[in-house]
Amino acid sequence: MTSIVQPRRPIALTPGDPAGIGPEILAKAFRDAPEAMRGCFVAGDVEVMRRGAACIARPGLASLPVAQIESLSDLPSVPPRCVPVLQVVAGQSAADLPVWGRVDAAAGAHAAATVRWAAQAALRGEVAAMVTAPLHKAALAAAGEPFPGHTELLQAEAARFHGRAVADLPVRMMLANPELRTVLVSIHVSLRQAIEAVTSGNVLETLRITHQALVAVLGRPPRIAVAGLNPHAGEDGLFGTEERDVIAPAVVAAQAQGWLASGPHAPDTVFMRARRGEFDAVVAMHHDQGLIPVKYLGVEQGVNVTLGLPFVRTSPDHGTAFDIAGQGVADAASLIAAVTMARQMAG
Amino acid sequence: MTSIVQPRRPIALTPGDPAGIGPEILAKAFRDAPEAMRGCFVAGDVEVMRRGAACIARPGLASLPVAQIESLSDLPSVPPRCVPVLQVVAGQSAADLPVWGRVDAAAGAHAAATVRWAAQAALRGEVAAMVTAPLHKAALAAAGEPFPGHTELLQAEAARFHGRAVADLPVRMMLANPELRTVLVSIHVSLRQAIEAVTSGNVLETLRITHQALVAVLGRPPRIAVAGLNPHAGEDGLFGTEERDVIAPAVVAAQAQGWLASGPHAPDTVFMRARRGEFDAVVAMHHDQGLIPVKYLGVEQGVNVTLGLPFVRTSPDHGTAFDIAGQGVADAASLIAAVTMARQMAG
Repeated sequence: MTSIVQPRRPIALTPGDPAGIGPEILAKAFRDAPEAMRGCFVAGDVEVMRRGAACIARPGLASLPVAQIESLSDLPSVPPRCVPVLQVVAGQSAADLPVWGRVDAAAGAHAAATVRWAAQAALRGEVAAMVTAPLHKAALAAAGEPFPGHTELLQAEAARFHGRAVADLPVRMMLANPELRTVLVSIHVSLRQAIEAVTSGNVLETLRITHQALVAVLGRPPRIAVAGLNPHAGEDGLFGTEERDVIAPAVVAAQAQGWLASGPHAPDTVFMRARRGEFDAVVAMHHDQGLIPVKYLGVEQGVNVTLGLPFVRTSPDHGTAFDIAGQGVADAASLIAAVTMARQMAG
Repeated sequence: MTSIVQPRRPIALTPGDPAGIGPEILAKAFRDAPEAMRGCFVAGDVEVMRRGAACIARPGLASLPVAQIESLSDLPSVPPRCVPVLQVVAGQSAADLPVWGRVDAAAGAHAAATVRWAAQAALRGEVAAMVTAPLHKAALAAAGEPFPGHTELLQAEAARFHGRAVADLPVRMMLANPELRTVLVSIHVSLRQAIEAVTSGNVLETLRITHQALVAVLGRPPRIAVAGLNPHAGEDGLFGTEERDVIAPAVVAAQAQGWLASGPHAPDTVFMRARRGEFDAVVAMHHDQGLIPVKYLGVEQGVNVTLGLPFVRTSPDHGTAFDIAGQGVADAASLIAAVTMARQMAG
C-alpha cells in the first residue's frame, strides 16, 4: 500500500563531482527517504558511493549497504535502504578516490562521464528521468570539458543524439520551490549579454517551453507571468523600451496561442504576487532576476529543472559544497525534492 | 511611563497625493498607533485630512478629530488620537477636493507643495525628520513637476538650499524591512543605464552613504555586503568583468577606510545570507536586484529611506493605491514602520 505511483522505467541519479557532497546526499536520501527513492539507482561508481555511504555512518550502526547491479532489470530486487549502483564508468579503487573538497581533473572527468551516460540512457528511453547531484565548474574545466554545467552539456548531448544543431534545441532553466517557479530567458552570461538575449523570439520560446512543461506538471494550462526587464517594467517607456518593443509582443503572441500568459509585470513585485498564488510561474528576463527570489527563503527546498530537453532532468538547487564534503552533514532535502519533481514530471 | 524616546523636534508627515491612500493611512496611524505617532504632525491641508479621517470612520463611533495647529509650538497640547495639521498650502474647501483614485493635476501640485514645505522645514532644522505618504507620478507630471518622485525632488531641494549642484549631493535609496536592508546604486533608469551607472565611484559613494547612515541606526559599524552585477558575481570574469574591474576596487577602497565592506558576492544568494544575519545591509547594483528580495515577503513592513540627504526622510514602501483609495481599507503598517524608523534615525 503506497500512494506513490511507480513509473514504468527507473530514474537515474548521477553522483556529481565525487569530491563534493553529491555521493553523501545520494546515500542520505536512500537511507532517510526510501519511499521517495523507489525505482531510483545511481549511475556512477561503486567505490565513490561506498565512500559516500561511509561518511554518513552513525556510530554503532551498520553502514548503509551499497549494491552493484548488473543491469536495470536487477533493480526491483534491491531492498529499500540500500543504494543500487550501476557501474557506468571504469571502476576505480578506493585508494584512487579524489580528496574531499579539492578540484581534481579526474573527478571532473568522472562526473561528466556519468552525466553523459545518464543522458544517453534517457535519450534511448531506458530511464524515465535523470536527477543530477552537483558538478564543480573548475573540475570540469580542468578535465577539458567545454561546458560550464549540466544544462549546456545535456543540451549538446540531446542535439547530437537527434542530429540537430544545439540552436534548434532550446532549453530553459526552471527553479522551483514549494512556493515559486521561475523560468529564465538566459542563464550563464553577463548581464549585458542577458539584455541582448531579451528578444521577442527568446521570450516567446521561453513561454512555449514553460507552457508545455507545466501543463504536464499541473494537468491544466499554467498561469504564466512575464517579468519586465526594467524598473517598473519600463514605466511606459520612461525607463527603457524593451517592454513595449520586445516583451509585450511576445506575450501577445503567446496569448494568441491560447496560453495564459500576462505581462510584462513590474519585476519588483511579480515574484511576491506569484508567491501569493496569482501565477503558477514567472518568466524571468535574466539569471538573478529569477534566482534572487527563488533562493531568498533558503535553498533547502529548491529544485532546478531543465525544460525543453527530450527527457526529464532535475537537480538540487545547490553546489558541491566542497567546504563540508565528506563530513556527512550535507542536507539531502533539495535532492529528495528533485527526485519527487522528476517522478511527477515523468508521469 | 513610556519607552519611546521623544525627539526634541517634531516629525513632519506629508499626506502625499490627496486622491490616494495617503490621508487615510495617516489618519489610521494616529488612531491605531498613538504612541508611535507622538511628536508627529501633518504638513498639509485640514480638509484633505478631514476627508481622510472620515473615510476610516466606524459606524456608531465618533470620527477621528482633526485639529489645525497654528505653529509647531502648539503640538505638545494636542491630545493623542487626534490628527494635528499645520496648514502649509492654501486652504481649500471640501467641495474642491480631488475625486478618489483619479489623476488630477491640482492634486499633484498640492502634494508636491507639501513635500517642498516639509523639506525646507527639515533643512532649516525646524523638524527632526520627514515621513512622506505616496505621490502619484502621473499627477506630478500633470502638474508640470519635473521629478518622477520624492527622492529626486528632495535632492534638488537640498542642493538648492545649500547652494550646491545636485551632482554634489548624492543620495541613495534604502529599502528596509525587519529582516533585510538594501541600498541601491541607481533607481529610476533603464537596466542598460543602470549597468553604466555601476562605476567604482558610484559604488564607493553608496558604501560611504550606507556606512554613515547605518552607524547612526545601529550604533556600530555596519557589515555591508556588496552584490555583484553579473550571475555568480561574474564567475572570475567568465560572465562579465565589472566585478573585477569596477566593484572589487570600490570594496577595497571602502575597507581601506575601515568600513566593514565585503564582496562582490553572488547576487542570487547574498540577500538570503543577509536575511539570515550575516550582513546588516546589501548594496545592490540596480533597482530590481535590491527590491525583488526586499518586497518578496510582502510590502506591509517595508520602509523606504533616502540616505545622503542633510535630513532624515522615510516613507512607506507602497504607492498611492488609487484602486482602493477612500475606502478606509488601506494598511497603515508600512507608514507606522516608516515613522518608527525616522524617529530612530533622527536620534
